Amino acid sequence: MGHEMEETTAPAHEPVTPLLDTINSPEDLRTLEEEQLPQLAAEIRERIIHIASTEGGHLAPHLGVVDLTLAVHYAFDTPRDHLIWDVGHQCYAHKFITGRRDQMRTIRKRGGLSGYPRRSESEYDDFGTGHSSTSISAALGMAVADAQKKRDQRSVAIIGDGAMTAGMAFEALSHAGYLESNVVVILNDNRMSIAPNVGALSTYFSKLITNGLYNRAKHDIKRIVPEMLHPAARKVEHQVKGFLTPFTMFEELGFKYVGPIDGHCIHTLVVCLENIRKIEGPVFLHVVTQKGKGYEHAERDPLTYHGVRPFEKTTGQFGGGGSTEPPVPSFTDAFAEVLLEATELDERVVSVTAAMPTGTGVSKVAERFPDRVFDVGICEQHAVTFSAGLAAEGMKPVCAIYSTFLQRGFDQVLHDVCLQNLPVLFAIDRAGCVGEDSPTQQGAFDLSFLRCIPNIQIMAPRDAADLKAMTRHCLTLEGPTAIRYARGKAPSIGDTTGRDISCGEILRHGDDATLLGLGPVLQNCLEAAERLERIAGLSVAVADARWVKPLDEELIERLAGKPIITIEENSIVGGFGSAVLEHFEKRDMLGRVRLKRLGFPDEFVPHGTREEQLADIGLDVDGIVESVRKFLGQEITQTV
Amino acid sequence: MGHEMEETTAPAHEPVTPLLDTINSPEDLRTLEEEQLPQLAAEIRERIIHIASTEGGHLAPHLGVVDLTLAVHYAFDTPRDHLIWDVGHQCYAHKFITGRRDQMRTIRKRGGLSGYPRRSESEYDDFGTGHSSTSISAALGMAVADAQKKRDQRSVAIIGDGAMTAGMAFEALSHAGYLESNVVVILNDNRMSIAPNVGALSTYFSKLITNGLYNRAKHDIKRIVPEMLHPAARKVEHQVKGFLTPFTMFEELGFKYVGPIDGHCIHTLVVCLENIRKIEGPVFLHVVTQKGKGYEHAERDPLTYHGVRPFEKTTGQFGGGGSTEPPVPSFTDAFAEVLLEATELDERVVSVTAAMPTGTGVSKVAERFPDRVFDVGICEQHAVTFSAGLAAEGMKPVCAIYSTFLQRGFDQVLHDVCLQNLPVLFAIDRAGCVGEDSPTQQGAFDLSFLRCIPNIQIMAPRDAADLKAMTRHCLTLEGPTAIRYARGKAPSIGDTTGRDISCGEILRHGDDATLLGLGPVLQNCLEAAERLERIAGLSVAVADARWVKPLDEELIERLAGKPIITIEENSIVGGFGSAVLEHFEKRDMLGRVRLKRLGFPDEFVPHGTREEQLADIGLDVDGIVESVRKFLGQEITQTV
Repeated sequence: MGHEMEETTAPAHEPVTPLLDTINSPEDLRTLEEEQLPQLAAEIRERIIHIASTEGGHLAPHLGVVDLTLAVHYAFDTPRDHLIWDVGHQCYAHKFITGRRDQMRTIRKRGGLSGYPRRSESEYDDFGTGHSSTSISAALGMAVADAQKKRDQRSVAIIGDGAMTAGMAFEALSHAGYLESNVVVILNDNRMSIAPNVGALSTYFSKLITNGLYNRAKHDIKRIVPEMLHPAARKVEHQVKGFLTPFTMFEELGFKYVGPIDGHCIHTLVVCLENIRKIEGPVFLHVVTQKGKGYEHAERDPLTYHGVRPFEKTTGQFGGGGSTEPPVPSFTDAFAEVLLEATELDERVVSVTAAMPTGTGVSKVAERFPDRVFDVGICEQHAVTFSAGLAAEGMKPVCAIYSTFLQRGFDQVLHDVCLQNLPVLFAIDRAGCVGEDSPTQQGAFDLSFLRCIPNIQIMAPRDAADLKAMTRHCLTLEGPTAIRYARGKAPSIGDTTGRDISCGEILRHGDDATLLGLGPVLQNCLEAAERLERIAGLSVAVADARWVKPLDEELIERLAGKPIITIEENSIVGGFGSAVLEHFEKRDMLGRVRLKRLGFPDEFVPHGTREEQLADIGLDVDGIVESVRKFLGQEITQTV
Repeated sequence: MGHEMEETTAPAHEPVTPLLDTINSPEDLRTLEEEQLPQLAAEIRERIIHIASTEGGHLAPHLGVVDLTLAVHYAFDTPRDHLIWDVGHQCYAHKFITGRRDQMRTIRKRGGLSGYPRRSESEYDDFGTGHSSTSISAALGMAVADAQKKRDQRSVAIIGDGAMTAGMAFEALSHAGYLESNVVVILNDNRMSIAPNVGALSTYFSKLITNGLYNRAKHDIKRIVPEMLHPAARKVEHQVKGFLTPFTMFEELGFKYVGPIDGHCIHTLVVCLENIRKIEGPVFLHVVTQKGKGYEHAERDPLTYHGVRPFEKTTGQFGGGGSTEPPVPSFTDAFAEVLLEATELDERVVSVTAAMPTGTGVSKVAERFPDRVFDVGICEQHAVTFSAGLAAEGMKPVCAIYSTFLQRGFDQVLHDVCLQNLPVLFAIDRAGCVGEDSPTQQGAFDLSFLRCIPNIQIMAPRDAADLKAMTRHCLTLEGPTAIRYARGKAPSIGDTTGRDISCGEILRHGDDATLLGLGPVLQNCLEAAERLERIAGLSVAVADARWVKPLDEELIERLAGKPIITIEENSIVGGFGSAVLEHFEKRDMLGRVRLKRLGFPDEFVPHGTREEQLADIGLDVDGIVESVRKFLGQEITQTV
């Protein structure tokens, strides 16, 4: 842990934060006068902006909840009371005041703090998050555990309005209301997930805000909240009013609804939360915040400043920091281009995304064809089956979901798409190492969990040209297909003329062994093969398998005469290498092959840069060289 | 297809159904006078009761929707309008009137009609179902496809109140309300899923029914429905009333809400549906039905008559039909027993089920410990993360979910339980072949999709004694565990004294090869080994691997000297056999082993009895004998 923190970006001048410097835990926070909290909030914001401007990472979401974070820790008895941050990309303020202030400069770096809550990091991180909409379920589990142990504690889930659109949150609300547990759900309503929110629920939230309740709550909390402290009185009122009073959806689900209140007025928040803490049973507090609050540029454009690379603090300008990125297109760019082309060519092509229009690139298609791109919100389950419905009626849906989030739609891929053999194309971005994000976000499993599903065809492009050709190809097929590709730049590997993506391809010939892989890691394979020749006199071939399901069996059998090293950015368990093994077993060829599989080890990959991650799991050039030499029985004596 | 329908139960005397006999399609239905529909409904009910009493299968759900089925087909223009049955275990009436009347006696039999809607079976089965809560998503996809094609059609989803509790349904409602698509959602509210419903949503439905809207709708449909035909008028009304009128949750999500209405009054249904068909935009029709309607015994006890084995029609008595089942306990029984024991012994043990208290056996624990068993409704996602929350606070949750339904919680198992290494025990019933239910319900994938997840330990018991020992063992472990076991009777295999479930076990010695398997299919392996010795002079060992993750590596390496045939009731892709292969690769032992993997082929397994399914995929005794002989190079010349 923390073993290479020295070599990070030269520490630009850090903001002066005298009050924050005295806060080593929420205990310290609770000794402050409430009037001091706004200053503390301001200091934390400066530090957050400083981190993001120098190191990149999430920004706008962290800024939006600084005041709320302080108020919650002030009003509740953490860590006895449990606090769960949904998604978790808004936890910087929380980390600053829970004993990690001085480690914050290591955040999102290899060996440093995680950008998300993590149980192993602090007793104040009650539950690790990363994927959205898990917080209410977890909070309810904790509340029930406390009840079983006869402890009088509170479990607080802080969840964004975007995350509330996921069905899982609804499942948990309904169960919590039924159990009448001591759960406090704080809706952090900033009118955004990463992109602007969609869905009727979002419209509903707007209505709650504009409907007068907001002002009532804001100016008259004392009247509203104490009323809630008397369930008996409230019950009578409820019975009398019946259906005539304006009940919110959350009250119908068994919650006491408070709000909406101003999420940047710390006084309002503290008074409200202190009262709420005394209420028995589930409470839903609707807090309105502004994403990016306190940094002008982020307030104006929270989408751009949701997650950032380093920028100049005063101007908000990106890319001035010496990192002159070459204009290599990413896989996402290539996908957006080919999807736009396909949408133009065939009116049956429609796109579906689950709250990631920009990240997946479909937003570029939506600019031209707004009626043929569907952002369903953070609803991967629905996204998949909605796509199946489209396909059942003759459309050609392209369902673009990150690898890690497609896990949420696993059953729907299997049950609704593949079992019915419907032509949905899954465009799976962020497959493999995704870098600084938490282990929760790595795309480490899609080949394993998709490969076991009958009927689906799975491909992995090594570069942009392949991705485009594969997309065109898959849209001509009758059944389900998946193309999985990596985050970031798409290298250009090998000649593009005369490529045939219907099968694999030998990229380099060699007599001693073959590196048989998939995806952009083939670039590392080619470099490793060259180095092996140079330093060890080994003649190693490199082959692009392209297809994970079905395999290019002919190619693979042809390679069987020499040792094979498979390589993939996917778990070593059940992935591409296993498919190759299974094929040799099917052909009863095991006795005739020597095979070694490289990939993600059977453990969760911690955060770091993509390059660091690849090195950690031995998929960088050094790692591949070493694995090949070891496998071929060469002692590694030379240094490179 | 249909090649063995002759050999089924001797046809008991079939009900006389003169009107039904004239209905070959919904076109025919629509030529009837509305007054004739009740007679048709009665005839269909007689046929449904007849099928269930002679053949078994679902009963109460089918009976509950006969009237609704006729009304929907009468009022809508199927198959131009789309009709999707959520879950699908209520589709018999639909099948009777959509050209499959005379094939209904083949239902749920190998090669016969499916007990669920299936696209390949009829143009009236717009979308195959099996798992709950997919219908609204699919209907919305179809509605959007129709809109893209400028077709004026309607998509109708019929969904139970149980299925409405799943988050996926909520995701779809919110999206449909937002898109303002021509989707009709019919809530078939019978106050039950399989077990009585739970959750605040269920309470909410009750409130809607008792709140006077019911009667208003029932007696004054004409007043309510035409009002909805004038969106402009309604809009004004809406604006004036603001928050002062009793809006339902569904109206807040953008639907027009109609009902609740009586789901057994065909006249009401027809008038209402004919009006609804003319409405633009999403409509939510709340229909109240009685599960088991028209069969006295099922009306009184819909839980018992949800799914049945053959019974005597007049008395409703089970088991008189000659099938004297020996009192062999099922895996479920054994699990319930050991769970009860564990609950008694350790107050940290709590159980979680997703609407399957009886099917999983946890209801037996709930009888004694009602406060320590949590039925969360059809909410597998929430069930898993709720369990994670319990575990995070020191409880020992046992999360009991069928194999096929755990697919819904895949991401949560990975992200919330395993990534945090929390001690949740997954008790996975119905793993492997599940028999007459559709391919949607087979437990064919859990070993593959769980095995790729780091940290989890996975076991599979061959009999009841093992299941109990494994459960006790897993509850002592610090991290996540899974025990997967089959539907139905638990055979008793081998001596139970001195068993050590911490490793695998040789059940039979042999010199020529080893059958290395898991689960109750080991019984078939033992019989196959005996037969191979008897008829072919082959000496085949049988070994129980018990552990899928981690493998009993020592045992497996010890077996490597002889040919190994792995055997599992799971997909051949990425399952146990692949784990064994991967292990030999890891040890660079591939050149020294001969190995053959048996399991589910890489395709969906059609319905049939469990025995027929095992035979179809070659896991019955005959199949195993044949595979071993072929693998060992023996020509199969003798007949058994």
